[in-house]
Amino acid sequence: MGSIRLGKRTENRYPKVKDFVPLAKLDDIVFGGWDVYSDNVFEAATKAKVLEAELLNAVKAELEVVVPMKAAFDKNYAKNLIGTHVKTGTRYEMAQEVMNDITTFKEKNGCDRIVLIWCGSTEIYYEATEIHQTLAKFEQALLDDDKRISPSMIYAYAALKMGIPFANGAPNLTVDIPAMIELAKLTETPIAGKDFKTGQTLMKTILAPGLAARSLGVRGWFSTNILGNRDGLVLDDPDNFKTKEVSKLGVLEDILRPEDNPELYGDLYHKIRIDYYPPHGDNKESWDNIDIFGWLGYKMQIKINFLCRDSILAAPIALDLALFSDLAKRSGMSGIQEWLSFYLKSPQTAEGLPPENDIFKQLIKLQNTLRHLMGEDLITHLGLDYYQELVDVL
Amino acid sequence: MGSIRLGKRTENRYPKVKDFVPLAKLDDIVFGGWDVYSDNVFEAATKAKVLEAELLNAVKAELEVVVPMKAAFDKNYAKNLIGTHVKTGTRYEMAQEVMNDITTFKEKNGCDRIVLIWCGSTEIYYEATEIHQTLAKFEQALLDDDKRISPSMIYAYAALKMGIPFANGAPNLTVDIPAMIELAKLTETPIAGKDFKTGQTLMKTILAPGLAARSLGVRGWFSTNILGNRDGLVLDDPDNFKTKEVSKLGVLEDILRPEDNPELYGDLYHKIRIDYYPPHGDNKESWDNIDIFGWLGYKMQIKINFLCRDSILAAPIALDLALFSDLAKRSGMSGIQEWLSFYLKSPQTAEGLPPENDIFKQLIKLQNTLRHLMGEDLITHLGLDYYQELVDVL
Amino acid sequence: MGSIRLGKRTENRYPKVKDFVPLAKLDDIVFGGWDVYSDNVFEAATKAKVLEAELLNAVKAELEVVVPMKAAFDKNYAKNLIGTHVKTGTRYEMAQEVMNDITTFKEKNGCDRIVLIWCGSTEIYYEATEIHQTLAKFEQALLDDDKRISPSMIYAYAALKMGIPFANGAPNLTVDIPAMIELAKLTETPIAGKDFKTGQTLMKTILAPGLAARSLGVRGWFSTNILGNRDGLVLDDPDNFKTKEVSKLGVLEDILRPEDNPELYGDLYHKIRIDYYPPHGDNKESWDNIDIFGWLGYKMQIKINFLCRDSILAAPIALDLALFSDLAKRSGMSGIQEWLSFYLKSPQTAEGLPPENDIFKQLIKLQNTLRHLMGEDLITHLGLDYYQELVDVL
Amino acid sequence: MGSIRLGKRTENRYPKVKDFVPLAKLDDIVFGGWDVYSDNVFEAATKAKVLEAELLNAVKAELEVVVPMKAAFDKNYAKNLIGTHVKTGTRYEMAQEVMNDITTFKEKNGCDRIVLIWCGSTEIYYEATEIHQTLAKFEQALLDDDKRISPSMIYAYAALKMGIPFANGAPNLTVDIPAMIELAKLTETPIAGKDFKTGQTLMKTILAPGLAARSLGVRGWFSTNILGNRDGLVLDDPDNFKTKEVSKLGVLEDILRPEDNPELYGDLYHKIRIDYYPPHGDNKESWDNIDIFGWLGYKMQIKINFLCRDSILAAPIALDLALFSDLAKRSGMSGIQEWLSFYLKSPQTAEGLPPENDIFKQLIKLQNTLRHLMGEDLITHLGLDYYQELVDVL
Repeated sequence: MGSIRLGKRTENRYPKVKDFVPLAKLDDIVFGGWDVYSDNVFEAATKAKVLEAELLNAVKAELEVVVPMKAAFDKNYAKNLIGTHVKTGTRYEMAQEVMNDITTFKEKNGCDRIVLIWCGSTEIYYEATEIHQTLAKFEQALLDDDKRISPSMIYAYAALKMGIPFANGAPNLTVDIPAMIELAKLTETPIAGKDFKTGQTLMKTILAPGLAARSLGVRGWFSTNILGNRDGLVLDDPDNFKTKEVSKLGVLEDILRPEDNPELYGDLYHKIRIDYYPPHGDNKESWDNIDIFGWLGYKMQIKINFLCRDSILAAPIALDLALFSDLAKRSGMSGIQEWLSFYLKSPQTAEGLPPENDIFKQLIKLQNTLRHLMGEDLITHLGLDYYQELVDVL
Repeated sequence: MGSIRLGKRTENRYPKVKDFVPLAKLDDIVFGGWDVYSDNVFEAATKAKVLEAELLNAVKAELEVVVPMKAAFDKNYAKNLIGTHVKTGTRYEMAQEVMNDITTFKEKNGCDRIVLIWCGSTEIYYEATEIHQTLAKFEQALLDDDKRISPSMIYAYAALKMGIPFANGAPNLTVDIPAMIELAKLTETPIAGKDFKTGQTLMKTILAPGLAARSLGVRGWFSTNILGNRDGLVLDDPDNFKTKEVSKLGVLEDILRPEDNPELYGDLYHKIRIDYYPPHGDNKESWDNIDIFGWLGYKMQIKINFLCRDSILAAPIALDLALFSDLAKRSGMSGIQEWLSFYLKSPQTAEGLPPENDIFKQLIKLQNTLRHLMGEDLITHLGLDYYQELVDVL
Repeated sequence: MGSIRLGKRTENRYPKVKDFVPLAKLDDIVFGGWDVYSDNVFEAATKAKVLEAELLNAVKAELEVVVPMKAAFDKNYAKNLIGTHVKTGTRYEMAQEVMNDITTFKEKNGCDRIVLIWCGSTEIYYEATEIHQTLAKFEQALLDDDKRISPSMIYAYAALKMGIPFANGAPNLTVDIPAMIELAKLTETPIAGKDFKTGQTLMKTILAPGLAARSLGVRGWFSTNILGNRDGLVLDDPDNFKTKEVSKLGVLEDILRPEDNPELYGDLYHKIRIDYYPPHGDNKESWDNIDIFGWLGYKMQIKINFLCRDSILAAPIALDLALFSDLAKRSGMSGIQEWLSFYLKSPQTAEGLPPENDIFKQLIKLQNTLRHLMGEDLITHLGLDYYQELVDVL
Repeated sequence: MGSIRLGKRTENRYPKVKDFVPLAKLDDIVFGGWDVYSDNVFEAATKAKVLEAELLNAVKAELEVVVPMKAAFDKNYAKNLIGTHVKTGTRYEMAQEVMNDITTFKEKNGCDRIVLIWCGSTEIYYEATEIHQTLAKFEQALLDDDKRISPSMIYAYAALKMGIPFANGAPNLTVDIPAMIELAKLTETPIAGKDFKTGQTLMKTILAPGLAARSLGVRGWFSTNILGNRDGLVLDDPDNFKTKEVSKLGVLEDILRPEDNPELYGDLYHKIRIDYYPPHGDNKESWDNIDIFGWLGYKMQIKINFLCRDSILAAPIALDLALFSDLAKRSGMSGIQEWLSFYLKSPQTAEGLPPENDIFKQLIKLQNTLRHLMGEDLITHLGLDYYQELVDVL
């Protein structure tokens, strides 16, 4: 639904993005996927209680035919999930099966192109090891059924091997390791990660740039979340929570840059909690207390209470990432797609390049990339030419 | 305290703004002003209870010598104020006196340059009439002591006549009329208006662009404010509140652009309240309820409670506007300074040009103007060149 | 659904109230009423959007047969309502018609007894005049079609004249005038008023006794409400709002008793706002900021955000008042029923007797009245007898 | 500062409690205590930053002379505390030393009577074992230096042995074990426990009775707390947090009685979090989200944000408990003082007697106990006699 400004403010050109760049048509998309449960999409959606029964019933037939394929799963990576619809075999065999699944799906549905988006749960916390450093080592580890390869990596590997764009909606590393970057370059495939930016972190990367813009100091930021869906259940395990915590904690540092603004942000205490709270179901709620200070160090506080809906905010992100990843592939853009960081809590960037978490800079990056792709002028918001008298002088 | 990025992200150049552009030094500034009360600044600040007695006492001597000049005042423009330290005479005479005041102040303090910032209370609501359309008519009206000339216009006229930059921190029109723009051009003087963007509207212009960025619909936005300082007392009069209300209401339309996004913002109900609440004094507090909706129209809510301090947020804005207005004057920039809209609730723009209320675009405009002035590259956040493989392709 | 403790804590006797006192059975109740619109109850409820369509459809047949009788109405008492289904004629004639309506309804439905509850909108603010002082003067004023008789008084008069209990759910005076009290005594009829205690005031009369219990000082209490139902529309008129404001403002004084606790409550600033906000419909929302102080005058704050549903909270109150008013009538209790003040924002009391707004004292009053009616011991919560060693000593 | 109503409402008798019952005079009280740090009270209070320096300096001399005695301490009971001013020796020896400390203090200050209030940190979670069941076993365990005797029990034992009243402001068992109750009876000494009811739980026991009074269902109650004082530091250890959690979790069950109201409270999910958050210091802040439901199961929410000050709320409780415990002793009341449960999160009661957590019933219990002690009528809030017509009938 988004639109994009083209040209000068006075031209009043604001086409919809979908009319500006050649995205795939929604009617041409076929959805499919893997799940650790065998419920078809109608059954799964009914249990999830995100959408009203009335809405689901209206498309029951369309949803029932979407039956998940067996998941590549390892219970050690999500202890609170009891997967019953899972592949057996080694990691290497599972990767082969995923590739077969994709080929079969593509043929059966007559698809021209495929995109993979990881919408699965957060995996437990892990860091990159030697087997994640090169493609060769990674492929050997696959053959060795090395437990350090997480399930999400099996999917990512399968996709990239086939030249299929892959975006990661969860905070686990997955494509954020050298081996995957190497593979993406090799097969000229776009990748993007990681962690859909939906509720509280969305708000945080909206608000923090605003505080920084005004040089308001931040002494503390306490963020608590309550949610009662399956995502909340998985995050109730401390190992899984840690992965999410690391992803969420990082955003403030980049935006506020405490090392360069020690008087304002050097002493910032940032704490994040997530609690499983069944009464809320998918209606995730966050409460933030932000301790700021202004001129002469005088203290002020901001409290934000966001009564959001986890899946309602996430679904359009998954779709946008699919459409833009596909566009990137067709446009010959491969490897890390930093311009998609607008959608992500913990953006993947070129090695050594600090990520950009400020959502407004991310948006400009996204929009200017689209303008650049389509040969339109980039927008700098300078705008001095609206004031002829200034232009004459300068 | 603000810094500005120069060059590419990898260059890591983030000088303080004050080290980047040739601003006046704080030690070189002398403060003076007019007030409807005769209290010196120490007395006034003590009564205002914004700063702790301890802090004020530490600079008592410096503050006591700042004694206000008699104000150009008309009680009809602020019924809840009982001014006791005011000029008599016609509007024309008052304008002459203000100019004399300035000349005297400048000589007495050995100042090279002067800047005027309107920090007075909000005047009652009025619209531009025929006498505000041209400089000639305005000057005739001055001679006629026409009551349609508000007190703030007397100061603005005096400043611009002398080539002194003028910025308006309140929501009354003041310099936002054709006669003043004409005079500013004539004397090559920068002007900027209007209404310091401090608490709730600051938050609104931070948050609304974030919602728009994600195409989240907005069905309602209810904003209430409580404050107990003299500003609150003045706004307790419905005529004065209306001026403030108009200034505050406008910001959402420009950012959300309902005419182009009717499904998302066409039905937005925006309501603003300000209540005088003595227990809070200067500690202005706002509470916002925002009714948003996402995918499939599902409803969500955001509540923001901002426990702020009115004057603490406003003081640095007044200072920045003074420093930048002075810079503009020295740089040969005259007339409307839209690049200063970053600080203002209701930015003045060239005729026919819609204002930009998105604080992040305002910031880019401000920063790119400074980069432009100093001959640095403008920043577009495209950043494709960090990814060599992309650059090769495109 | 409420239960009541009987006897000592160790007896563990907690019957439901409905099993303890002889209330009318829900199945025996027939509902009817008057409305200024001709919609039947199904149509009205569908438009009100309080209940889901699914629920309403399940009882569509039962609701459709409830067709309102024409209302006794005077537009001057609710300017924002455009009544189209109203009685004509003088006030005296309208009163006669209301009595005829009741008689017809009673016969048609085979009812043994009738109770009237005023669930109409808030009338504009008015105070008692001479015509409200005695029954004789009131009846003369009826004959004179005196405009100082409000529509709600016409209903109250009709009910009391027929010996039918009347409870007033709105903040207008109605039965809270000497003439009605005189009539109620004459016909031995219970009356109760006024103003259903639902959302914010409910919370206030819960919280304020808690603060008073701990001798926490209160310096300010700011209450704002937003709602978008027809009640909100009526209250958008300042004259109607004033009636509601007076009713809501009174509760704190009685609970906190500033005259006896001047150091704690003598300087309390209490402000109430109600704003019409269509996006919320019947989902009334309140936000309260309470400025308290504790030991040594140190300041603290409480913020309460209540996302409530106006009608969902009001409906059971209307039902309870009907059931208990009927019980009172059968028990020979007539005149002012102060024990029902538990349900009311602005309780009617005997002349000269200060009202009791503390909801917990109101509850004890209600429960001890029921215990008294049924011959059970009153409960004092002394409980020393649980500790034999104490009893021996004292 | 509290007052108490005596007699009928119309008598208007509301004396201060201190004028009604013979409490010790504030001027006659001498304060002393033990601490694990050697700072005198002026130093400790300065570090705590609860009170402004200005206030402390005004009574510097009085505070400096209050030097703590060495604490009976065992680091295993509070791992985050590094005690440097502690007694050595066995538990038996420490108990003897505490008794000597008291005797010395009493003589030195010429005190007639002594009261002990435990204001120390929360100890780690433990339950009563066999050594806590009888006085004989407990005294043997003291001699055996049994680690299951917590430090707070050493103080309690010393106090009760000397006939000195003891009240427990922390959630650890301490006097809430059979051995202590036995000792209290033996020496005819009042005891009261446990856990000062200050911030969030205070609000909870104010609000929950209000919801129960109206038969509003409660589906979930999420409570989070942030605080940055030493109490917060101690509770950052999960073992200590558990003690506090158990104390805080219990209050809802007694008030809502889910076993008797399963439709309303049978499915209640109650979750409590406490997070150490240094930016707030002693300014403890709580945020509660309460999911309630009304008629037909319709959902509503209440959010409470309490910006409180931990010590400011706790100090008067400690003082009241001291005054009333002393009164109890003089009045011949010994053993468990349930009438003081008004001040406590987890009230100690006679064996088998469910505690009363409803703060309003606690207040009535407290006030009726005082009335009973002084020979005044108990108050039942029946009040039918104000309405003569009712009295005649009934």
